[in-house]
Amino acid sequence: MTKNTQIVLNETPRGPLAESHFEVQSSDRPSIEDDQVLVRSVLLSLDAANRAWMQGATYKSAVEPGQIMHGYALGEVVESRSSSWSVGDVVAGELGWQEYAAMDAASVRSVGDHRPLSHYHSLLGIAGITAYHGLLTLFGIEEGETLLVSAAAGSVGSLVGQIGKIAGARVVGIAGGPDKCRWVVEELGFDACIDYKNEKLSAALREHCPAGVDIYFDNVGGDILQAALFAMNLNGRISCCGAVSQYDVAKPTGPLGVPGLLVTKRLTMRGFIASDFPEHDADAIRDLGAWAASGKLKVVEDILDGIENAPAGLVGLLAGENRGKRMVRVGPDPA
Amino acid sequence: MTKNTQIVLNETPRGPLAESHFEVQSSDRPSIEDDQVLVRSVLLSLDAANRAWMQGATYKSAVEPGQIMHGYALGEVVESRSSSWSVGDVVAGELGWQEYAAMDAASVRSVGDHRPLSHYHSLLGIAGITAYHGLLTLFGIEEGETLLVSAAAGSVGSLVGQIGKIAGARVVGIAGGPDKCRWVVEELGFDACIDYKNEKLSAALREHCPAGVDIYFDNVGGDILQAALFAMNLNGRISCCGAVSQYDVAKPTGPLGVPGLLVTKRLTMRGFIASDFPEHDADAIRDLGAWAASGKLKVVEDILDGIENAPAGLVGLLAGENRGKRMVRVGPDPA
Repeated sequence: MTKNTQIVLNETPRGPLAESHFEVQSSDRPSIEDDQVLVRSVLLSLDAANRAWMQGATYKSAVEPGQIMHGYALGEVVESRSSSWSVGDVVAGELGWQEYAAMDAASVRSVGDHRPLSHYHSLLGIAGITAYHGLLTLFGIEEGETLLVSAAAGSVGSLVGQIGKIAGARVVGIAGGPDKCRWVVEELGFDACIDYKNEKLSAALREHCPAGVDIYFDNVGGDILQAALFAMNLNGRISCCGAVSQYDVAKPTGPLGVPGLLVTKRLTMRGFIASDFPEHDADAIRDLGAWAASGKLKVVEDILDGIENAPAGLVGLLAGENRGKRMVRVGPDPA
Repeated sequence: MTKNTQIVLNETPRGPLAESHFEVQSSDRPSIEDDQVLVRSVLLSLDAANRAWMQGATYKSAVEPGQIMHGYALGEVVESRSSSWSVGDVVAGELGWQEYAAMDAASVRSVGDHRPLSHYHSLLGIAGITAYHGLLTLFGIEEGETLLVSAAAGSVGSLVGQIGKIAGARVVGIAGGPDKCRWVVEELGFDACIDYKNEKLSAALREHCPAGVDIYFDNVGGDILQAALFAMNLNGRISCCGAVSQYDVAKPTGPLGVPGLLVTKRLTMRGFIASDFPEHDADAIRDLGAWAASGKLKVVEDILDGIENAPAGLVGLLAGENRGKRMVRVGPDPA
């Protein structure tokens, strides 16, 4: 019987996530019941949110020690006991960190004909949908406004900034390290990028956002959110997408200036996740696809090879080593 | 020449505000120039925001040591060198903490015919307009939703909760001390009121908001905001009106859960001040006036006597000793 490599969360991390929090195990390939399908995983998405899932219930239930690590993946139906799916169908769902998953037929969804398949994790997947909705659906942006984006080299940030440029905004990124910042400006076309590891944030914000910040797209929380709050303009908007700076610390901190600066500057802070605006998903996919096809939007992917590399891949993602959308190739593309 | 009692800010407070930060002085009544009016102050509004003005520029420039303390007051024109105003006109403006103010004609505005005049500080003034816009204009509230209001016995909170009841919401207040809490329930008609000085907030929120909190009207920030964030429902709204818990402390703290809980619960936090929605002020005045006239809304006022009592009145307000809208009677009503 074909084996199924799986990765289990051993222990709930109380500080920085490490590879040792995971264990690779080899099980039998699962059998399926009526109204289920067996899915062979092809591409597994790695996301900062994976780390937040270990801290307790969020918008989904927590990952508990002993469970297969939760994860969103694209795969191929290799066995079906459902009238909804046939062998060879390409589907997406919460397959988890494993090669084969027995899934309820209703819990997976079809992906479209767009190729490469990896775009369903990057451009047209959670990253692209998150970037689009968090910037355009939530608040919109006007030509000439200043957009600040943290985790600017990451999967979502790299797209948010480019969408901001397409909309005619001044776009300033924040990323860690001079190489990454140079890349954000030269490759992605941001107007500037602040190296938070080597620059003083408040001074750099004054320099690069001389007219203040109208929209801050926050992927990180913590000290960077706090600095951004002080740089915001009257009636500024803060799109709260994630808090990656806080996931991996034992003692999180709250930003000073909340709620004082929200009142004096009449700021709006709003949290969201990718799936909050299903009625606008078609707009997002149409626009993102068109921008990429015309070369206005660069799709940056960072694909690791082999499911056994997922733990190191997530640890590295939280440390900011990726550029663009990180994923793991679990198996070959469907024929 | 008639004297003018004035109150000066001596020193910028670095910790709790005390009466000793102020000095009472007696000056000559000011003379006016062309396009100015001399206004005799009648009723001076005391607001928690007065304290925030001492901490630096907010939505207005900071009060600097040596200046007459800033303040909003109602008064009577007693001398006019402007074609816009006649002696006897009743006006409102930034008269400051003094008996007589020389004002540019364009810097004061007329008040309407509604009496008692004190209602232009409470029901129809900053308190009422703030309560109305912060709850209804900013977000709206649906029948059956749960509204949480901090500083529930204060000028704004006492109105917010009553407006919530008129809208059919479950209304839970937060106030300091058992007497004040009992008064909020029995006199103002809130469904419950949590005594933050004697109860554990998280447990009390679970008890009194069994269906969670849909809207939190935040007058205080700090620990209470933090507890509220954890009690919010999915898609909850937080109306950020003030941060009185933070004005008087040397080292403010930021609320944990920002931005993490904003993302996972898809919360919106929005700051505002009373003057942000001029296009809706007429609605507010119409509705507030009608509710008060029909007895649905109780207007609670706390009027101290004599300008020399303004410092103690503000110190006491920040300590939460007032119920309803605190103001100072500086002189008799216009005939």
